[in-house]
Amino acid sequence: MRGFFEPKSVAVVGVSNSLDNLGWLISANLQTFGYGGSVYEVGRHGGSVFGRPIYRSLTEIPDPIDLAVLLTPAPVVPDLVEECGRLGIRRVVIESGGFDEFGEEGLRLADRVREVAGRHQIRFIGPNCLGVFNAHSGLATPFGPLEPGIRPGGISVLSQSGGVMMTILNALTSEGLGVSKMVSMGNKLDVDENDLLEFLIEDPETTAICMYLEGISGGRRLLDLARRAEKPIIVHKSNTGAAAHRIAASHTAALAADDRVVDGAFRQVGIARVRGIRAMMHYLKALSLPPMRGSGVAVLSRSGGDAVIAADECERLGLELVDLPQDFLDQAQGRLRANVIRLTNPMDLGDIFDLDVYHDLAEATLAMDQVDGMVFMNTYVGGPEGSGAEVLFRQMHHLSERTGKPVAAHADTSEAEVSRLKKVLPGPIFDEPAAAVQALVLRRDHRRDVSADTGRPDGPADRPLVEEVLARCRGEGRHLLLPEALAVAAAYGVPVAAGRPAADEGETVAAAAEVGYPVALKVVGRDLSHKSDVGGVRLDLGGEAALREAYREMIATVAARAPGASIGGVLVQPMAPAGRDMIIGARFDPDFGHVVLAGMGGIFVEVLGDAALRVAPFGSATAEAMLRELRAYRLLEGVRGQAPADVPALVEVVGAVTRLVTDFPEIREIDLNPVRVMDAGEGCLALDARMLLGLPPSG
Amino acid sequence: MRGFFEPKSVAVVGVSNSLDNLGWLISANLQTFGYGGSVYEVGRHGGSVFGRPIYRSLTEIPDPIDLAVLLTPAPVVPDLVEECGRLGIRRVVIESGGFDEFGEEGLRLADRVREVAGRHQIRFIGPNCLGVFNAHSGLATPFGPLEPGIRPGGISVLSQSGGVMMTILNALTSEGLGVSKMVSMGNKLDVDENDLLEFLIEDPETTAICMYLEGISGGRRLLDLARRAEKPIIVHKSNTGAAAHRIAASHTAALAADDRVVDGAFRQVGIARVRGIRAMMHYLKALSLPPMRGSGVAVLSRSGGDAVIAADECERLGLELVDLPQDFLDQAQGRLRANVIRLTNPMDLGDIFDLDVYHDLAEATLAMDQVDGMVFMNTYVGGPEGSGAEVLFRQMHHLSERTGKPVAAHADTSEAEVSRLKKVLPGPIFDEPAAAVQALVLRRDHRRDVSADTGRPDGPADRPLVEEVLARCRGEGRHLLLPEALAVAAAYGVPVAAGRPAADEGETVAAAAEVGYPVALKVVGRDLSHKSDVGGVRLDLGGEAALREAYREMIATVAARAPGASIGGVLVQPMAPAGRDMIIGARFDPDFGHVVLAGMGGIFVEVLGDAALRVAPFGSATAEAMLRELRAYRLLEGVRGQAPADVPALVEVVGAVTRLVTDFPEIREIDLNPVRVMDAGEGCLALDARMLLGLPPSG
Repeated sequence: MRGFFEPKSVAVVGVSNSLDNLGWLISANLQTFGYGGSVYEVGRHGGSVFGRPIYRSLTEIPDPIDLAVLLTPAPVVPDLVEECGRLGIRRVVIESGGFDEFGEEGLRLADRVREVAGRHQIRFIGPNCLGVFNAHSGLATPFGPLEPGIRPGGISVLSQSGGVMMTILNALTSEGLGVSKMVSMGNKLDVDENDLLEFLIEDPETTAICMYLEGISGGRRLLDLARRAEKPIIVHKSNTGAAAHRIAASHTAALAADDRVVDGAFRQVGIARVRGIRAMMHYLKALSLPPMRGSGVAVLSRSGGDAVIAADECERLGLELVDLPQDFLDQAQGRLRANVIRLTNPMDLGDIFDLDVYHDLAEATLAMDQVDGMVFMNTYVGGPEGSGAEVLFRQMHHLSERTGKPVAAHADTSEAEVSRLKKVLPGPIFDEPAAAVQALVLRRDHRRDVSADTGRPDGPADRPLVEEVLARCRGEGRHLLLPEALAVAAAYGVPVAAGRPAADEGETVAAAAEVGYPVALKVVGRDLSHKSDVGGVRLDLGGEAALREAYREMIATVAARAPGASIGGVLVQPMAPAGRDMIIGARFDPDFGHVVLAGMGGIFVEVLGDAALRVAPFGSATAEAMLRELRAYRLLEGVRGQAPADVPALVEVVGAVTRLVTDFPEIREIDLNPVRVMDAGEGCLALDARMLLGLPPSG
Repeated sequence: MRGFFEPKSVAVVGVSNSLDNLGWLISANLQTFGYGGSVYEVGRHGGSVFGRPIYRSLTEIPDPIDLAVLLTPAPVVPDLVEECGRLGIRRVVIESGGFDEFGEEGLRLADRVREVAGRHQIRFIGPNCLGVFNAHSGLATPFGPLEPGIRPGGISVLSQSGGVMMTILNALTSEGLGVSKMVSMGNKLDVDENDLLEFLIEDPETTAICMYLEGISGGRRLLDLARRAEKPIIVHKSNTGAAAHRIAASHTAALAADDRVVDGAFRQVGIARVRGIRAMMHYLKALSLPPMRGSGVAVLSRSGGDAVIAADECERLGLELVDLPQDFLDQAQGRLRANVIRLTNPMDLGDIFDLDVYHDLAEATLAMDQVDGMVFMNTYVGGPEGSGAEVLFRQMHHLSERTGKPVAAHADTSEAEVSRLKKVLPGPIFDEPAAAVQALVLRRDHRRDVSADTGRPDGPADRPLVEEVLARCRGEGRHLLLPEALAVAAAYGVPVAAGRPAADEGETVAAAAEVGYPVALKVVGRDLSHKSDVGGVRLDLGGEAALREAYREMIATVAARAPGASIGGVLVQPMAPAGRDMIIGARFDPDFGHVVLAGMGGIFVEVLGDAALRVAPFGSATAEAMLRELRAYRLLEGVRGQAPADVPALVEVVGAVTRLVTDFPEIREIDLNPVRVMDAGEGCLALDARMLLGLPPSG
């Protein structure tokens, strides 16, 4: 990838000196940003730009070319790439639009470009993009003017949209954050975010990586790369709407809509997900602070109002305003001028006009063990008080660096002054009290959910049994029947309410006698995985008479409601003991592979969508974290004197589901619903199970 | 109040020409902002400022004074106010600190000031404040320098904190929003937000009102004023933390913690509550757009990425991207240059370089019936393209005004250019795609929950019965016992599971035989309102043996767990039919008076805090809105084929509770928990009830 960022020579194809020529703007940018390599322009009308000739073809250029940038009508691009290949040019940026994003003809052109490039071992960025910007080398291929004031630095950016790349560049410049490398990736026909991410993770000039993605190319690789990266990776993944339109085949599928999978997967590997560029900048600033090791915070403010607002936000986000020692407060009190404020934490320093006192108080506060981070807020008028404030903010930055504890600084002053500070200070400035508090929380929680247990979890696994069931289903071109699904789950260590299958009313009565009343009755059939919806479930049948009536009524109802389905009998299960009902499931996600889901059944998933997701495989530490992440976790712990539930048994079920989809990726969807969890020590029981295979069902 | 904003003469007391004198800064501000009235300075050292003499006392001033501004040490303030009174000065601003916010001595000073002012019919602002700023008259009493660039306009601001008033002033200036009047109210010893709000609502120069409040003075009056105001009222109420520390005596009390009451009350009267000054500015900008009458939206963008991001946000917030007619899209497609983009909604206009086309497309789109509002996003480089963009944004503003449909405009450009636009454009500019979408939603939903049904709801009300019960309790210095609370609820039309009281085991068995097994058993006693916590509830007792055992065990457990309590017998209730359990309650809030609460029992309130609150009294339309506001409402409607619950019966219960606290304000707390709601048409039943009186319980 380095070839894209540090070429010694660049050919820009599609240049003329017509007024509305866009290729010309690329040459202008290379000039503006002081690109030090050789630049050659190519355009079929010839002429000259910047005192250089415009060559009529790449072949006319007398020197070797490291990078070709193409901005011509789409139909001529494949031949140009062919020409690059013949000339030994191995890096190409294709900025033209009109490819796979634009109809049938475009798709054909895209295929041709890919074929030609592959044949010549050419790597290319685009098409439909702005290409590359390297603030350090001055390489700038966008065909539009760039805002002035860009500061070279450590932040690299990958964007699927050229417009959003420019938005990010503007935002970085406004925040005074320095840029290393930026790529507008366009259609990602060849080079994608993973190729570039891998390079940037190793790139010594890059200290943090931002991405704007509308779709994910190779989610699995993205996760592997991100997990290993030490640098902050901050992603705005948009285009979330489509997920809502998918038709969901099960609870697990409905809950694991794509965007929630992205959330879970990113959390799992420590990618910070943001919604919007402002939030991206905020995260970048927060992560430039030293890590916060606990939740103890001190607030120093020159405005009482700001102090109150910051304290509210601390409480809302779970930071603890630590009690400062009384002798320290008494000493500080002695530094006040009018002595009309009582000091506490948050400290209202509005009555102190000697800025050195702020520094001393901040230093003493940061030296306290119980203080893990600090919010420092300075209220002042720009212009006259700016230089003093600047000194103070620098001092806070150095204190933060020296103590290794984050100091989030807020300047409560004019917009122009904040803008100025952002450009001159070595550390971040936050523009609201709440933003400063939030930064500490982000810093504290960054990569909190990254865990090392990424292997297949150990546990029971009767592979031959599962293989046999799957082979039978595959042979008959169907998904698993209820008893099969329960058997497969059991083979991997899930305790199940197995019950007994029965083919007719007589067998049903006999089966009930064996399992013992009261019983549950469930219809079994190849197109009947949604049993409840067609009236195929009867619970709590206390005796033979009730059972017979329920059987007849159920068969009639199912036949009426699902006329095409073939009823293959019923399953007679003993009624399970009382407990809390959970859903444990998995489904195959096209971006990330199998995703495992846990949630509390009934209200929580149906009404609240309260579910935790992780990409498989993972071990029990992650499974436990999933359960703790649920809002319903308090119910598992037991509220109002209720006994706690058997969470370890539930963790084993999550492990079993993880093992199953790891060993048998052809299982596309698992839905154990409900899994009834008894009190601690008493285990759990899957009462129902659906499993779908990645096969077209025969009918 | 007008006297505070438009005095013809001002005396500033506490001025010297020492370098660190703060009073001097007030005179400087009056000068800077061109205050046209007479200004007199007073200071005990005499001297001169701005070529005027500093009088040694107010009495030395030869002319009449409309407004005195005091900035002296607190101890001399009462005498100064006395002097104002004798001189006939009826408006005073007290900026000095050191009063009720600062210890015992300060409290005494505060009392003296209040007494003196009352005696002389003086109205005063403060103490501990920055006083008044009127951008139209140039009256500026803050004792600190103000940022330059303030634009006179229609927005008035009331702030409890001087620092936050300055923050808001800076924010308004940055946003290019014009200021009318601002008041830093400080300790609000006399003039409070309601006095000023009442004036501003009538003030023709004020078009919108912003407030920053740390505490509420007279919540009831605030609500009455706000309900009648046509102008937008936007409030940042901070200082929310303390609420969490209150000890909660019941579910209702726990759920109705102060900050949630503020949320509910503000919603009820159409006050927009914001958290932070950035959000305040955003709301102001949103409310300056025409109202949005539906949810149909069109997105026009010059950047494909921005279009995707805006579409995501529309979906997230429930705006509908309407289908644009195909012939319109075809026509628009013809205006593209390279023709490499397929138009839809959101419309990616990146391929159009003729700005007139944007205007034409926007006009045609706004003319469509199904379009209720539009997001318009222009991506461009500041400087060179700025003037064209400015014209376009002006056109969008005029289209918005002409069509009466909101157009939320986003400028995706440099910070400096956005800053420039904010100052020159007649309408708002939003700085993120999501912010523009959010503005439309705020505009659509503003005052949505304001309803006119503010009277006591009609319904059953057996006043004499309730009076008798309350008199008995009052006489015995205690709260209501369980049977009394149920009787009072029943007297106001709540269907209750009344049951039969019993004094010993024998009576209990007889009572059970009368109400019919299975029964519930609940302990009754004056200090036993938390029955469950002391083991005082037994459910589902199927026969005499079980009942006797439960009785003995319950009495023993309660005696052991609540040793001081006097057990006054038990209540034997028939077991209620199955249904959904709700909590309906009320409590007295010191700021707003009685607040009524509705929530779903069990999980929803305990784990999720899902509750709706309104200030009483109100009618059935508001009661219905409360229930619909609950996340649990879907469960009342019936999920997964469940029958809907009897919501009208529940609305009646809310009405009964509202009537009760309206007729008997001494009832400080009501907790009907659970209220079991049966299926539609089958009513509901309060199974348990707690009522506390506003009396010190005798023991």
